Amino acid sequence: MSLVKIEHVDFFYLAMPDILDIADGSQDTLLVRIQADGLSGWGECETSPLVSLANWVTPMSHSICQSVRSSVIGQEIDHPDDIRHLGQLVDRRGLDIAQTAHTFSGIEIALWDLLGKRARLPVYRLLGFDHAYAKTPYASQLFGETPEATYEKARQSRDQGFRAVKFGWGNYGTGAPEADDEHLSAARRGLGNDGLLMVDAGTVWGSNVDQAKLRLPSLTEHRVFWLEEPFVGDALAAYQELAAASPDVKIAGGEGAFNFHMAKHLIDYGKIGFIQIDTGRIGGIGPAKAVADYALEHEVTFVNHTFTTHLALSASLAPFAGIEACHLCEFPVEASRLAVKLNNHELARHEDGMVRASEEPGLGVEPNLEAIQEYLVDVEIKVSGKTIYSTPKLP
Amino acid sequence: MSLVKIEHVDFFYLAMPDILDIADGSQDTLLVRIQADGLSGWGECETSPLVSLANWVTPMSHSICQSVRSSVIGQEIDHPDDIRHLGQLVDRRGLDIAQTAHTFSGIEIALWDLLGKRARLPVYRLLGFDHAYAKTPYASQLFGETPEATYEKARQSRDQGFRAVKFGWGNYGTGAPEADDEHLSAARRGLGNDGLLMVDAGTVWGSNVDQAKLRLPSLTEHRVFWLEEPFVGDALAAYQELAAASPDVKIAGGEGAFNFHMAKHLIDYGKIGFIQIDTGRIGGIGPAKAVADYALEHEVTFVNHTFTTHLALSASLAPFAGIEACHLCEFPVEASRLAVKLNNHELARHEDGMVRASEEPGLGVEPNLEAIQEYLVDVEIKVSGKTIYSTPKLP
Repeated sequence: MSLVKIEHVDFFYLAMPDILDIADGSQDTLLVRIQADGLSGWGECETSPLVSLANWVTPMSHSICQSVRSSVIGQEIDHPDDIRHLGQLVDRRGLDIAQTAHTFSGIEIALWDLLGKRARLPVYRLLGFDHAYAKTPYASQLFGETPEATYEKARQSRDQGFRAVKFGWGNYGTGAPEADDEHLSAARRGLGNDGLLMVDAGTVWGSNVDQAKLRLPSLTEHRVFWLEEPFVGDALAAYQELAAASPDVKIAGGEGAFNFHMAKHLIDYGKIGFIQIDTGRIGGIGPAKAVADYALEHEVTFVNHTFTTHLALSASLAPFAGIEACHLCEFPVEASRLAVKLNNHELARHEDGMVRASEEPGLGVEPNLEAIQEYLVDVEIKVSGKTIYSTPKLP
Repeated sequence: MSLVKIEHVDFFYLAMPDILDIADGSQDTLLVRIQADGLSGWGECETSPLVSLANWVTPMSHSICQSVRSSVIGQEIDHPDDIRHLGQLVDRRGLDIAQTAHTFSGIEIALWDLLGKRARLPVYRLLGFDHAYAKTPYASQLFGETPEATYEKARQSRDQGFRAVKFGWGNYGTGAPEADDEHLSAARRGLGNDGLLMVDAGTVWGSNVDQAKLRLPSLTEHRVFWLEEPFVGDALAAYQELAAASPDVKIAGGEGAFNFHMAKHLIDYGKIGFIQIDTGRIGGIGPAKAVADYALEHEVTFVNHTFTTHLALSASLAPFAGIEACHLCEFPVEASRLAVKLNNHELARHEDGMVRASEEPGLGVEPNLEAIQEYLVDVEIKVSGKTIYSTPKLP
């Protein structure tokens, strides 16, 4: 087989007609298509779409402040190692543009999809895994407006067969600890005593450890399995202090990591128990797999971060598909209409309630071109009178 | 005096006609002007201009993935604390856009300039310093193509009265250690035995400690005062290992930090001896001052990172102007024609060869509107048929 030369890369910015000022990250997306050898590879960036479109095409500022495009177009790919080397090139030439990994992630994922389709192998096999273990999906959702609403959401998830549920954001952590406790109590009642309950604080306390400690008795009482993102991802000392103060409730974090080092630091210095990686942000499937391997060596559990589409879910499952010890999987249950309609296939829960990485070639999730048409946002970027990006037309 | 309401913010993307693929970061810039109360405050972002322009205007993706503009316009500023609070708001609402601090930095700097002009006080006084200590400027430049060229550059700097010189980038670290040694030997000869010589490796070794260690004997022999950025800023374990192996040559780094935490980690975990902060990237003068204070507590020396204009230099001097122990100052000596022409005033070296923060109100460096006209890059960004950014017209 010939090398895959990267020449045809298209970005599609898709958005809901009305974007709400809530933590639902599925309201828009930046989809990437790479066409070669008569095949299409697809990926998704977890990013601000317009910022990444500018990052894709931006004029050079100096040697390490260059567009992603300039490093990608014309490169040849034949083997997973080539994707890794391309990532290193993009990192180096884009070092002074913080957005670079967010933008490259979708390309990296699309290249794995393409190589998988070409080799007629699922991506997890290309990563060196022999087997995709079943994962327990947890229903990932936002807290209700009221404890009653949180209770109803928990009960509904239980009725849908979920044995694990996570609630996040909303007002959690912004008011009195007693108000937060009412939500946890309601969630536990709705889920039942035997369900796994997780809480996502959504970085609400910045780096304020005292605010987090105030909630530990309630989190312990309701047997919360992990407390996620009490702090911004860079607040390593705060993570470390809280982890030391919380023997029962493990700390989780990492979704903000946009390189291997940031995830490693949360493990090494932050002392978290669960590392949550979004392949659409960390630079793709390869860097995520490196984190999964590192976590395993350090007795930290790797979990995907996915709140959006099943394409993103498939890409996020691959890096730890073959690691039996990492048994949980974030599963989106309240994604936007756009995110739900975007893919023709989904990674449905099996009859046993479990989720497994796709056995289809590539990522096994094909975007629905009609949905892309419906939600496509028209963008044009002109520099010095020349159009350097415009939204591609679909056939 | 009334509050300053932020309503009129203009971004100017300026670039040299031809951008070369070298490490000279002065080939373009993103200038910010904020007009209020009949005054103009000016700042500069160290960023990829087009990426930050998109970051300024991007449509909302969700609650913590919002444009900088949406957090800034309409806010009121009266006191330095208000700038800090605005920074926190921007951080929070822009948490999922990695470029955010790069983009906000120029705004933050312009706000200090504005408040200083309004109060008729230099910015260092607004920061709480009583006195601006003289700093020893070091002539910051790229290595020559050959050792002879490096020798000439060093000799020229000495002839110009510089007692400290830094060489960086070029081919340093990319070939054999012997070739690197020839450059250091030439630099030392050109500078003379009594001059301070620093080396900037420009992250060339990624996180490979062995490559750095190979150069330590040569760095020690030529009495190099610091080795800067042997690794990418996130490679904390590599920094720590090298620092432990290098008792004579201190390690410097930090220019890539785009929040307080990243700089703190280089001090806490990376064990560097010099922390180098670019106010145009870390979120402005306030976060840089917080790093300077933290460094002082931890016996680490704060140094500015400035390779470009005298507006950037003035903004970068303010955060440590009043700290006598931090006595060195990076001083651009081979900035592009654009960077040299951009300002009407400069922070000239005094007769004693030293540099001091400006005593003029604000930052004391006014951009030259004619130079802006000459280098202005025309940009237009359209989303859904609506122009959301276009290059402002100058009067």
